[in-house]
Amino acid sequence: MSRLVSDALQDTRTARRLVAGGRPARQQSLRDHNLGLALRLVAEAPTPVSRAQIASTTGLTRATASTLVETLLAGGLVREVPLPPTARSGRPAVGLVLAPGGPGGLGLEVNVDYIAATVVDLTGAVVVHEVHAGDQRVLTPAAALRTTAAVGAAALAAAQRKGVRVAGTAVALPGLVHDGRLLLAPNLGWQDVDVRRLLTRNRRLTALPLALDNEANYAALGEVSPTARTFVHVSGEIGIGAGIVLDGELYRGSRGWSGEIGHVTVVPSGPACHCGATGCLEVYAGQEAILRAAGLAGQSVGAPGAALAERATLGDPALLAALDAAAGALGTVLAGVLNVLDISTVVLGGIYAPLAPWLLPTVGHELSRRVLWSSWEPPSVRTAAHGPEAAALGAARSVVAAVVSEPERWLVT
Amino acid sequence: MSRLVSDALQDTRTARRLVAGGRPARQQSLRDHNLGLALRLVAEAPTPVSRAQIASTTGLTRATASTLVETLLAGGLVREVPLPPTARSGRPAVGLVLAPGGPGGLGLEVNVDYIAATVVDLTGAVVVHEVHAGDQRVLTPAAALRTTAAVGAAALAAAQRKGVRVAGTAVALPGLVHDGRLLLAPNLGWQDVDVRRLLTRNRRLTALPLALDNEANYAALGEVSPTARTFVHVSGEIGIGAGIVLDGELYRGSRGWSGEIGHVTVVPSGPACHCGATGCLEVYAGQEAILRAAGLAGQSVGAPGAALAERATLGDPALLAALDAAAGALGTVLAGVLNVLDISTVVLGGIYAPLAPWLLPTVGHELSRRVLWSSWEPPSVRTAAHGPEAAALGAARSVVAAVVSEPERWLVT
Repeated sequence: MSRLVSDALQDTRTARRLVAGGRPARQQSLRDHNLGLALRLVAEAPTPVSRAQIASTTGLTRATASTLVETLLAGGLVREVPLPPTARSGRPAVGLVLAPGGPGGLGLEVNVDYIAATVVDLTGAVVVHEVHAGDQRVLTPAAALRTTAAVGAAALAAAQRKGVRVAGTAVALPGLVHDGRLLLAPNLGWQDVDVRRLLTRNRRLTALPLALDNEANYAALGEVSPTARTFVHVSGEIGIGAGIVLDGELYRGSRGWSGEIGHVTVVPSGPACHCGATGCLEVYAGQEAILRAAGLAGQSVGAPGAALAERATLGDPALLAALDAAAGALGTVLAGVLNVLDISTVVLGGIYAPLAPWLLPTVGHELSRRVLWSSWEPPSVRTAAHGPEAAALGAARSVVAAVVSEPERWLVT
Repeated sequence: MSRLVSDALQDTRTARRLVAGGRPARQQSLRDHNLGLALRLVAEAPTPVSRAQIASTTGLTRATASTLVETLLAGGLVREVPLPPTARSGRPAVGLVLAPGGPGGLGLEVNVDYIAATVVDLTGAVVVHEVHAGDQRVLTPAAALRTTAAVGAAALAAAQRKGVRVAGTAVALPGLVHDGRLLLAPNLGWQDVDVRRLLTRNRRLTALPLALDNEANYAALGEVSPTARTFVHVSGEIGIGAGIVLDGELYRGSRGWSGEIGHVTVVPSGPACHCGATGCLEVYAGQEAILRAAGLAGQSVGAPGAALAERATLGDPALLAALDAAAGALGTVLAGVLNVLDISTVVLGGIYAPLAPWLLPTVGHELSRRVLWSSWEPPSVRTAAHGPEAAALGAARSVVAAVVSEPERWLVT
């Protein structure tokens, strides 16, 4: 009895998560629940999964696991691939992977200086990717979103030509999103824009379900992989946002407004920020702050991350100093985030990805001196796999993740 | 179909939480799952719950809900209370509440200048509470923990005299806790102390399961109520810790080291902190920093929160200035926490609870100017229901929460 209580005290989390869903487990939902469990195993495994592995990992019987797999195969969501023969068994084994022919997703991103569209198939592989550079601040929200919708519709048509059906659209926006509206995007200068209504004026987008979220949230989801499941992803653009990923899931906060690290204070008495406060991180480490500190403000630098990286490689001393100052501010704020959240991994994305060689040493130094537990578990900082294109990719993958989490809705019958 | 996809995109969270538990739903676990669900409903409801409400809230049939309730009644975990008759029905209704005779919990706290013990019954009501003031820094860890164990054993004996059986012990510690050890407690000056081993030298404590966690985590749990389920609780003592509570559950982080806001940077180039970094919040707003800034360093002030509050009431100008400076630093750091976590409510605990009248205005001012979404959803700051005694109370209640989450282990048979 004592052991049982100790277990209960030390590890009630799983039980709570099951209970906290607030749904009772009923007979009729068992199959759907287990179907989603099996499909997530296939989706999250780094290599093809066998029926036997599904049974042993879930604790279901071999027969039940096989029935689930047959349902997913018949429904077009997984396919079989040969596995290398093992020493233990002479029979050729069969593994399961997500089916590229299953439903995919469209991700759109509206940002200050570009619009991007990405379509992925059910496996998360990119089948269409388009970026349209252009300063959106000179346009009205209606005009910018008309272009965005047209870019999205063109991407859907391109996907269709490649034989990929799309289950839905997800739109990444650089600000506070609520109930289909963009409440505030300080760097675009937009306030309370009904993005859902403006985008669905385009008939091709009306036909699909549409989700909206902050770009930093989606960018973080774009970095999730079987080996990277808990991290803080920092998206450096004209604004700076963070996406907090816990065990493969985005932590969104009470209203989806989490991760606004661009407005965390670096120096309380520092310079004024767009947002109305003083000394915010964006004032020290945002794209325009770096350009200004490097004496490059107002100069057109094309894709800014890549252009700055090229210039830093040439050893421009003003730029190197600007990058080091930005890294110091970024590292100080990130140390606070790690102290509060107890997360070990930071991923630098957006323009920080190409600039990582100049940022990593100072960011790492601030983390190791400011994070309380750094002697026990040294924090790690790495470069994002995707740069500024991560938000559209993550948005597209969020559509696919919704399909994987509720596969019963997507079985081809 | 489009509606269904939209739902899936917008609200996959519940489904994911169910799946994320990683356990398949099997017949044999259904009853236990539903038993926990019913008991949590009773535990979390602000007023007595009827069998009909359990059925309608969970979606279970009336017959199933009634069977679950009979099991909980027979197992001694809930009891019936009369409900006021409603206009709709002439029959006297019966409500359910947690049974005070069910298993309770012992919470212990070792802090820099006191040791506390609290026993609660299954309803969370305090049946024993003892505080022993005394500076633990002058003792060896072994001596301090010997006293702690004796205080705990005395509390268990007192609870037994009042007829309360105790299911387990939870110990709140002022530092980083891992696997039964206190890795680091900068303010105690302790490093890598095997707290579990030292405490269980006492035979009375050996007999019960023992859990250990950071004091700020437990203090936050002590503030959870049916009407307060998502908040950041700040525990001001010699050190400053925070507990992050999301929908009634503690966010612990990767290793239980979340909420170390005492070491979040206020001014990067600020004064040195115990922890080795510079400009940490504790340097500006910790108990000893306030005393020093007020010119009271080294003076014995008894229960420091209450003593300082008394002095502030008399209008001591140096103290009022010190409190305002502390509140500015605290508000700046908390604004960052709210920007990152998207949580609306801050609860000031520890010595900040009695000092709240002098802290609230400046903390509130910093939050409203620094939190990006404050115009849409103004953050609120309130005083903790419990002051320095919150950690021992929260620790005791965590034992009870473990009982509620897995009631099948606790049915009297």
